[in-house]
Amino acid sequence: MSSGGVIRCKAAVAWAAGEALVIEEVELSPPQPMEIRIKVVCTSLCRSDLTAWLSQAQPQIFPRIFGHEASGIVESVGEGVTEFETGDHVLTLFTGECMSCTHCASDKSNMCQVLGLERQGLMHSDKQTRFSINGNPVYHYCAVSSFSEYTIVHSGCAVKISSIAPLDKICLLSCGVAAGLGAAWKVANISQGSTVVIFGLGTVGLSVAQGAKMRGASRVIGVDTNPEKSEGAKGFGVTEYLNPNEHDEPIQQVINRITDGGADYAFECVGDTGMVTTALQSCCSGWGLTVSLGVPKNKAEIAVHYGLLLSGRTLTGSLFGGWKPKSHLPSLVDMYLRKEIKIDEYITHNLQFEDINKAFELMIQGKCLRCVIHMPTN
Amino acid sequence: MSSGGVIRCKAAVAWAAGEALVIEEVELSPPQPMEIRIKVVCTSLCRSDLTAWLSQAQPQIFPRIFGHEASGIVESVGEGVTEFETGDHVLTLFTGECMSCTHCASDKSNMCQVLGLERQGLMHSDKQTRFSINGNPVYHYCAVSSFSEYTIVHSGCAVKISSIAPLDKICLLSCGVAAGLGAAWKVANISQGSTVVIFGLGTVGLSVAQGAKMRGASRVIGVDTNPEKSEGAKGFGVTEYLNPNEHDEPIQQVINRITDGGADYAFECVGDTGMVTTALQSCCSGWGLTVSLGVPKNKAEIAVHYGLLLSGRTLTGSLFGGWKPKSHLPSLVDMYLRKEIKIDEYITHNLQFEDINKAFELMIQGKCLRCVIHMPTN
Ligand SMILES: NC(=O)c1ccc[n+]([C@@H]2O[C@H](COP(=O)([O-])OP(=O)(O)OC[C@H]3O[C@@H](n4cnc5c(N)ncnc54)[C@H](O)[C@@H]3O)[C@@H](O)[C@H]2O)c1
Ligand SMILES: NC(=O)c1ccc[n+]([C@@H]2O[C@H](COP(=O)([O-])OP(=O)(O)OC[C@H]3O[C@@H](n4cnc5c(N)ncnc54)[C@H](O)[C@@H]3O)[C@@H](O)[C@H]2O)c1
Ligand SMILES: [Zn+2]
Ligand SMILES: [Zn+2]
Ligand SMILES: [Zn+2]
Ligand SMILES: [Zn+2]
Repeated sequence: MSSGGVIRCKAAVAWAAGEALVIEEVELSPPQPMEIRIKVVCTSLCRSDLTAWLSQAQPQIFPRIFGHEASGIVESVGEGVTEFETGDHVLTLFTGECMSCTHCASDKSNMCQVLGLERQGLMHSDKQTRFSINGNPVYHYCAVSSFSEYTIVHSGCAVKISSIAPLDKICLLSCGVAAGLGAAWKVANISQGSTVVIFGLGTVGLSVAQGAKMRGASRVIGVDTNPEKSEGAKGFGVTEYLNPNEHDEPIQQVINRITDGGADYAFECVGDTGMVTTALQSCCSGWGLTVSLGVPKNKAEIAVHYGLLLSGRTLTGSLFGGWKPKSHLPSLVDMYLRKEIKIDEYITHNLQFEDINKAFELMIQGKCLRCVIHMPTN
Repeated sequence: MSSGGVIRCKAAVAWAAGEALVIEEVELSPPQPMEIRIKVVCTSLCRSDLTAWLSQAQPQIFPRIFGHEASGIVESVGEGVTEFETGDHVLTLFTGECMSCTHCASDKSNMCQVLGLERQGLMHSDKQTRFSINGNPVYHYCAVSSFSEYTIVHSGCAVKISSIAPLDKICLLSCGVAAGLGAAWKVANISQGSTVVIFGLGTVGLSVAQGAKMRGASRVIGVDTNPEKSEGAKGFGVTEYLNPNEHDEPIQQVINRITDGGADYAFECVGDTGMVTTALQSCCSGWGLTVSLGVPKNKAEIAVHYGLLLSGRTLTGSLFGGWKPKSHLPSLVDMYLRKEIKIDEYITHNLQFEDINKAFELMIQGKCLRCVIHMPTN
């Protein structure tokens, strides 16, 4: 299928850090070689979008189209694309897989050296944008930009999935749910009977919980400062809830006490580097493992006391749960179709595209897990 | 064998931080239940002794007898000791193994919860000292205190070894050489063909190098600010030497360039938390592993950029190379006896006990690897 012409469509454009998105008409070029143009069907809001949108600290890349957790249907394909054709159902990948670099070739890495996390708001291949308004560039986010009726991604930044999978649900596998499950399974490789502590009970943290429960963890301690997260957390496998604000002692001290020396695994799913330190202090000597998942809005540096390492603790992290996005994601979709993993339960709100700012508000207020934004179906 | 009476013997006593040791006559009580009294044969100086002796930052525990890397012969045993008898050849263990706590029972940990690293200068069991001068306590170091003709250790803090092993050599297995080999083998589990970078080419760093070479690492990059360390390093397996002072760019940048993206494994064997950050920055995304071994003299906190973790790097550490000291050390002694590992080559100086301060000077000046101190043989 050859590529069509320029598309004019609606996109939610961020004009400045923290300012409400504005639905604008944008121009989207045809897909370039090895790219595909996608009609976005559903996109959910992940905390990473919010953090990038709010951040005054990072380079100011505006106007910009956020969104990186999405499902869609291929509209047209660029030159050289053989893997996709018009009508294919896809998930977008905020970190891609070229299938041929040293990292893609290694089974130890999902850090593609060609299509890895894009930070400049451009496309990987030519460092240009595909979106424009009146001829002026509108920047991308993670080379995905799904807060638009149509978007363009590199063919290595999308994965074809079963056409029977509900696109309004499995969009969550495009980031948050897969990131949490992978952290539990692939990165930490949680073993049966172990004690797990999870900081942050949003979609990412609760996906770690789901993964931990499925691995037979005997205790899954969930820590969150928002007491409203307590109730729902149980359904995902959290066995005990702790609110740091309800304790006089530091929360790591509470955890060390109730676990008799610390958890086997700790996960940071808040996005606060201070919390990574707390997580490491909450896991046991000898074999305690802390996995850092969060993307901090402020301080980028984690402080680690050398003694925690010398006594046998390990600190690691992961992007997208260590999954190779193209290679591994279809099997997660299949697991969902076989009802082996939960996704629907993370969706607390369904919103129309024109109400996208509501999703940002709900997340800021701590009132949602995932808001799924449904694009117009014309 | 029952325990004898009080022994009066010579010990090198540190009276204050950084002040030359004074050889004093001390009284050493009989071994208490489950303890053994050892005639020290040889003790080498490890950087950890020096750091603890110099430190103004840590609690000032003086007068004190340092030394924790030692070989000796059992002089007498306390009540309940069945594992040792007079005349047994032993290595002292600065971190012990009770053989029955949860960590000793787990094959994932060497962090005995009963006889782990002692920091208060006392014996684990009764929080008392066994040494005294005129009835006043003289404090221990790591519950070993081998800078003395005789010392007392818990029976879990010594291991019986082959009586044919030369005590003036294998004392190095009691800390530095075993710590480095274990970090390479047990902790990092270095794989064939990999690239390794080692910060600090003292005995610990060069033992990592030896371990890396034996595992078939293809490149072993040694980093040391002391150019005198370069030449000898080759003999232990270092294939390339880098002196940070000879480069205009930060050394992690040099390493990333020459390894095309960073080493597979990095080891911090200096004792500088800033260097742990540098080590982490020197290993590759996806699977890069940094092992922290050093004991810092200043800043205890390591700064870790969260992005290094998110992109798949791992930071861990180890005390005594992850070996279970009692369970694993005899096999290292046997490897030495079969000439499978080098030890002699780390010994640059042999000194008599009365010249012990010379060992401290040599290490401060960067003129030695290990100085072995020979105790009087009367
Ligand atoms: N590594 C990855 O691949 C990856 C993927 C997706 C998201 N993320 C990051 O993971 C983090 C979580 O994402 P999410 O979408 O689940 O976000 P979320 O906002 O839904 O969840 C975060 C949770 O942390 C809680 N929290 C906030 N401050 C806290 C504190 N001080 N102590 C304890 N809990 C606290 C909040 O109440 C909330 O429940 C974010 O930083 C996000 O950017 C990383
Ligand atoms: N984890 C453990 O079980 C364990 C065991 C023994 C020793 N240690 C610690 O390991 C470290 C090394 O011990 P050692 O006995 O080999 O010490 P050492 O003094 O023999 O070696 C340290 C080396 O680091 C070099 N160095 C100093 N500053 C440097 C810098 N800025 N950059 C690069 N190189 C630098 C020195 O020139 C020296 O060659 C010490 O901190 C010691 O306390 C840890
Ligand atoms: Zn995300
Ligand atoms: Zn690749
Ligand atoms: Zn030592
Ligand atoms: Zn024990």
